Amino acid sequence: MKLLIVGGVAGGASAAARARRLSEDAEIVVLERGPDVSFANCGLPYYIGGVIAERDKLLVVSPERLRQRFRLDVRTGASVEKIDRQAKTVRVRDLDTGRAYEERYDTLILSPGAAPFRPPIPGADLPGVVTLRTLADTDHIKQRVDGGIRQVILLGAGFIGLELVENFVRRGVETSVVELARQVLPPFDAEMTTPIADRLTERGVRLFLGQTAEVIEASPGGLSLRLISGEKLSAPLVVLGVGVRPENRLAVETGLEVGPRGGIRVNEHMQTSDADIYAVGDAVEVTDFVTGERVQVPLAGPANRQGRLAADHIFGRPARYRGTQGTAIVGLFGLTAAMTGASEKTLKRLGRAYRKVYVHPGHHAGYYPGAESMTLKLLFDRSSGKLLGAQAIGGAGVDKRIDVLAVAIQAGLTVFDLEEAELCYAPQYGAAKDPINMAGFVAAGLVRGDHPQTDVDGLSTNKELSLPLLLDVRTPHEFALGHIPGAANIPVDDLRSRLSEIPKDRPVVAYCQVGQRGYLATKILRHIGYQASNLGGGYKTYQLFYPTPKQP
Amino acid sequence: MKLLIVGGVAGGASAAARARRLSEDAEIVVLERGPDVSFANCGLPYYIGGVIAERDKLLVVSPERLRQRFRLDVRTGASVEKIDRQAKTVRVRDLDTGRAYEERYDTLILSPGAAPFRPPIPGADLPGVVTLRTLADTDHIKQRVDGGIRQVILLGAGFIGLELVENFVRRGVETSVVELARQVLPPFDAEMTTPIADRLTERGVRLFLGQTAEVIEASPGGLSLRLISGEKLSAPLVVLGVGVRPENRLAVETGLEVGPRGGIRVNEHMQTSDADIYAVGDAVEVTDFVTGERVQVPLAGPANRQGRLAADHIFGRPARYRGTQGTAIVGLFGLTAAMTGASEKTLKRLGRAYRKVYVHPGHHAGYYPGAESMTLKLLFDRSSGKLLGAQAIGGAGVDKRIDVLAVAIQAGLTVFDLEEAELCYAPQYGAAKDPINMAGFVAAGLVRGDHPQTDVDGLSTNKELSLPLLLDVRTPHEFALGHIPGAANIPVDDLRSRLSEIPKDRPVVAYCQVGQRGYLATKILRHIGYQASNLGGGYKTYQLFYPTPKQP
Repeated sequence: MKLLIVGGVAGGASAAARARRLSEDAEIVVLERGPDVSFANCGLPYYIGGVIAERDKLLVVSPERLRQRFRLDVRTGASVEKIDRQAKTVRVRDLDTGRAYEERYDTLILSPGAAPFRPPIPGADLPGVVTLRTLADTDHIKQRVDGGIRQVILLGAGFIGLELVENFVRRGVETSVVELARQVLPPFDAEMTTPIADRLTERGVRLFLGQTAEVIEASPGGLSLRLISGEKLSAPLVVLGVGVRPENRLAVETGLEVGPRGGIRVNEHMQTSDADIYAVGDAVEVTDFVTGERVQVPLAGPANRQGRLAADHIFGRPARYRGTQGTAIVGLFGLTAAMTGASEKTLKRLGRAYRKVYVHPGHHAGYYPGAESMTLKLLFDRSSGKLLGAQAIGGAGVDKRIDVLAVAIQAGLTVFDLEEAELCYAPQYGAAKDPINMAGFVAAGLVRGDHPQTDVDGLSTNKELSLPLLLDVRTPHEFALGHIPGAANIPVDDLRSRLSEIPKDRPVVAYCQVGQRGYLATKILRHIGYQASNLGGGYKTYQLFYPTPKQP
Repeated sequence: MKLLIVGGVAGGASAAARARRLSEDAEIVVLERGPDVSFANCGLPYYIGGVIAERDKLLVVSPERLRQRFRLDVRTGASVEKIDRQAKTVRVRDLDTGRAYEERYDTLILSPGAAPFRPPIPGADLPGVVTLRTLADTDHIKQRVDGGIRQVILLGAGFIGLELVENFVRRGVETSVVELARQVLPPFDAEMTTPIADRLTERGVRLFLGQTAEVIEASPGGLSLRLISGEKLSAPLVVLGVGVRPENRLAVETGLEVGPRGGIRVNEHMQTSDADIYAVGDAVEVTDFVTGERVQVPLAGPANRQGRLAADHIFGRPARYRGTQGTAIVGLFGLTAAMTGASEKTLKRLGRAYRKVYVHPGHHAGYYPGAESMTLKLLFDRSSGKLLGAQAIGGAGVDKRIDVLAVAIQAGLTVFDLEEAELCYAPQYGAAKDPINMAGFVAAGLVRGDHPQTDVDGLSTNKELSLPLLLDVRTPHEFALGHIPGAANIPVDDLRSRLSEIPKDRPVVAYCQVGQRGYLATKILRHIGYQASNLGGGYKTYQLFYPTPKQP
């Protein structure tokens, strides 16, 4: 068996190591175009920021180690130019010597990755307009920062882009971010990104949301960028972080099927339309585990799993890829944002009958010092309660809750199962009712029809709720600090004795800070005949949708 | 509907609040013998240690709040002396006035909790021999520490006991711990507690394991305690932390069924043998979710869930308790130990056909600074790979992995599902192959029969492995720092070229530091006909079983 692997990072490296573990006999050749195999893509921004001090740390496994320990024939600077599927050979160009040669294969794995997208903006190819993918890119950007540049413009506010921003700020570089969407981190639902946008602004980052560059031009200071709004930004360095495109050239040229967004199409065994050619990683189209859609999800974890799985299947195991859930996380200026499964915008686009809840718990028991708050959003099927997605934003413990929910989604659990989850509780780590349980309680109540909930984003659009009475059931002190315009204030503890103040001819939407007192108020009001509902997630959720403007 | 609840902490308080949320009409009376309802039991040690500075923080909800917000008739100092099941009344003694009165119920919930066990040791009732359960107990111990005592003896090395120890040490109090088991934290498997015992010793705690007190006597310095070993300890304060016993007096006297260990027997709706009397919390016998055994598991999370569930069932919902998983966690001197599901000792006792793996990953990517190490032990069914239990010990991220595994066990997942788990990965939070995935890979390989594994604790007892060659495949440097006695050293990278040095007539057990190189070595050796196996979890696991003696 001769196995050729094109691409030696993430999925390719995983496939190679796994293949050797499965077969001591196989001839395994790894052809990597770049100078490095198996480097830590996800660490690149932190090396630029100086958090990762030594460049060597980014080289997870050296070619020598792969050669010696796994007896892999690892060739760097080896560019595969062509695949001959009939002859089962590839043509390889040795980039150091320029020599071209043929290499035979029994099975081929393509792991070419995805390349940063260069948008068709005039000037996007000017020197000083860069992307971040390889160690060489990283070295270049770091040299510019080390060399003392004071401004950077970032096009795109995705995960890696914002990680770069954090590291630019860490290095004292003034950063402007231009993002086409009206939010940062577009895979998240917009309201969940409000705290991130606020934090970026607090740290001096200039955000231009709902904007895009019309043209980039060389200028005395380096580069000048004009937005569609007419605004002009200038900086010596512009980083393009507007997404990636699958590296599908080889696949397309050799006639392999690709999807509408360019991803190489594979079956559940990671086989392309040619059963002897597998493809893994950012270059392939995958099935969304929750929605069943075909999607492009460039993530390191799935890439590694796919590589491993392709090797398993090649060596005779009944391995099947279950799809990609889109579990993702980013840490920015002390905040953590994480998600798994479908977003609300995806569910809306697909017309799914979902519901959602927001809870705002502390990451551990409130009586123990140091509890950090988070907002946890849960998306689930309206009738069965099956979990569809989750997003969280906050401080410590966000990653834990999303990982728990990632496994819950993988297992097909419902919100009722979350009520019953038995999680770690000591005061430093959680609560007797963990945020997961709390979210489960609220969501399960909603599915069971215990009480109606009005969504914040349904407040203004819900016709049935025309002219509802907004009833703020928090304390007068909380009310004074900020409330929804037009709301009346009756604290929940006074509610039973002040019912006469509430007109009976209008629907009532009760709200408190996070939803608990509002829930109780709703119960009380409905018991005596009011058409009452609780504002889901309370004023804290309202503030995510309608943030108080921050001073930059 | 008149609902009486006996006991206003944890389960009782949860039941009361839930009952009100379900019914605005019900008459709900909470009868609490002590002066406080709903206090934070799990915070008591940290108040003694000064971590929780304000006593008020321990009072999670005041009786006033419960009265006002939930219209609960909360009576503290109200001791229920007798239940008349025919008349459906209880006799209540008001401890403040001494007055006794009858209170009628339609439904009764017992949430009496569990009391610290006073072992039958002569002198266990002397002044200065105390237990920790209530706020009053806490105040007393804190006063003694504030008053300047310099030594404390703790009988029992359970969760709360060791949390107390940490807080005594924090306050500069010399602490001796006497534990009957030959390990600390008896619910854990012994080897997993080695790092905790080491850390306690490092911090100056004197551990007397496999020991018990024969007699406690008054002495000039306060109390003197003689161990069965003959050794004598003395201190002005002795804390009994040798477990709790269900408060079942009321239940027994009124003829309700109790289990062999004294727990009130309940069905899946938390109903006792009298369908109008429910029981919840530490006083009840529960079903172990994994093993199906009837057990006593005093934990706050399950108590709260049971209270909520009892209220649900009383108010007409089809609620069922799924059993207790035993998810537990403790933080001690910067280490975290956590577990969920069955322990190995339980599986052994029940004769279950289980297998186990150990992995020793970092809590996040190694290339990002600050990765803390952990040991994760997974227990699973030998043939199906279904998860049965998990334990972890280490630094950051231990709680996350056990929570993920707790939900995986709840969902009935297998080790194969862990291979496919898609968890959060950015370098500060995890790895492209998370510890959960790593454990899944190793365990799945074992279930699939990819390669034989020898357990560390099977090394000396496995007859088939009589006189195996122990082959240390780490570097000579690692070997020199410590190895298993009798092992030969051939680094894995040299193995293929040095096969002639390995006799073919003996079985070979290969090991490395954590198991990865040992796995590869086993593959290489078996490929050319050796009867080779890998030592599960490598030298790090060996050291948990056979720790290098530490200087106290």
